[in-house]
Amino acid sequence: MPRYKLTIEYDGTPFSGWQIQDTAPTVQGALETAVKAICGEDVRVHGAGRTDAGVHARGQVAHCDIAKHFPRGRFRDGLNAHLRPNPIAVLAADIVPDDFEARFSAIKRHYLYRITNTRANLALDIGRVWRVPRALDADAMHEAAQRLLGKHDFTTFRDTECQAKSPEKTLDQLDVTREGDAISIVTSARSFLHSQVRSMVGSLVWVGEGRWSADDLAGALAARNRAACGPVAPPDGLYLMRVDYE
Amino acid sequence: MPRYKLTIEYDGTPFSGWQIQDTAPTVQGALETAVKAICGEDVRVHGAGRTDAGVHARGQVAHCDIAKHFPRGRFRDGLNAHLRPNPIAVLAADIVPDDFEARFSAIKRHYLYRITNTRANLALDIGRVWRVPRALDADAMHEAAQRLLGKHDFTTFRDTECQAKSPEKTLDQLDVTREGDAISIVTSARSFLHSQVRSMVGSLVWVGEGRWSADDLAGALAARNRAACGPVAPPDGLYLMRVDYE
Repeated sequence: MPRYKLTIEYDGTPFSGWQIQDTAPTVQGALETAVKAICGEDVRVHGAGRTDAGVHARGQVAHCDIAKHFPRGRFRDGLNAHLRPNPIAVLAADIVPDDFEARFSAIKRHYLYRITNTRANLALDIGRVWRVPRALDADAMHEAAQRLLGKHDFTTFRDTECQAKSPEKTLDQLDVTREGDAISIVTSARSFLHSQVRSMVGSLVWVGEGRWSADDLAGALAARNRAACGPVAPPDGLYLMRVDYE
Repeated sequence: MPRYKLTIEYDGTPFSGWQIQDTAPTVQGALETAVKAICGEDVRVHGAGRTDAGVHARGQVAHCDIAKHFPRGRFRDGLNAHLRPNPIAVLAADIVPDDFEARFSAIKRHYLYRITNTRANLALDIGRVWRVPRALDADAMHEAAQRLLGKHDFTTFRDTECQAKSPEKTLDQLDVTREGDAISIVTSARSFLHSQVRSMVGSLVWVGEGRWSADDLAGALAARNRAACGPVAPPDGLYLMRVDYE
């Protein structure tokens, strides 16, 4: 029974997140419905990351095992046909070795968080960015962000409902850059805690507004206390960009 | 009575174009309603270009005359507050000399047309690009496009309902570039005929598919006959990016 690796893009806006639920539309649910429509099989689609409601993906990865064999590209095309009009695209669907696990084989996850720093309304980017009207100092945000790199107990930046056994994670990258009104925050790690990126971004915005210094951010990390976190950034600006495998 | 120059971004998807209509939502209509809400005045908002239904803008320009004086930035902020939740953003609203005309003072208009050249569904870019599944040769498109530069009778690339007195226009730029699956067509001219950009883009896609040669495209132009045009590209991928003034 071949195992397929799926690379998936989606607009998270209409979904209650990745993980399947009985009562709400989810990305995983839409994918499993599409697989069933093509193969007639009840198949579990396992994702690399359980994105929250409203969070987007340019390169989510998932795997599933299906009995049916398809000519190259046909499974991808069939999934896309059955997924419409959902804003979900299967960019690739390729056969991988049986021991490939979308979640457990991943060695690095890459996220992008987009902020628009403007007083004007959003128009083309509604639901796609976080609009912050107060002026942000992106250089100060970047400098402070470097204090979070490395292996730490990230309890402060972890949702209270996070189910990970350990709050220890190793953060490899947290870069803040500005181009005009657009601020991009690029981050990568082997894995992240629940809401970790949005918690770090919200706290960095406090730094950008001058409300927190880099020392305040480092102090919040050292507190290992969820109550020490800044605001949690909204899901609109968050994109799972890529998942790396060996 | 001060004259204001407005710089406007919008998502064209929910609108029946720029130009006000009695029975359908339009960008001009939404702006005039917002002006009335702030000033209590029935004011005409004059645009630089009448974008069609579904066409977007990152930098549409308009002007209007209002009796009320506002502190700097207040008119822009007020318009944005009243425009919500329409996907329209007033990026700037500045006082200009009384002889400024958004449409007639313009010396150059810049458009971007975005194509995604992929078999996969659209997800994050639904309504924002034209998805063309067949492989396109962007280099061939660019080379052919150069045959349209300069002063010509553009009857072939002009909507039959176009109201311009003359079909003669001078095309300054028509560049086609590819980055991965994304093809961008950047074009500029003092002014364009109705549907000219979408007509040129549709014909260029025929070149990209190998259905037309550069000579075929030049022949279509020389025919000065609407029937010689290729398909008209959908509005989804078209953006009015900027309007230049002296």
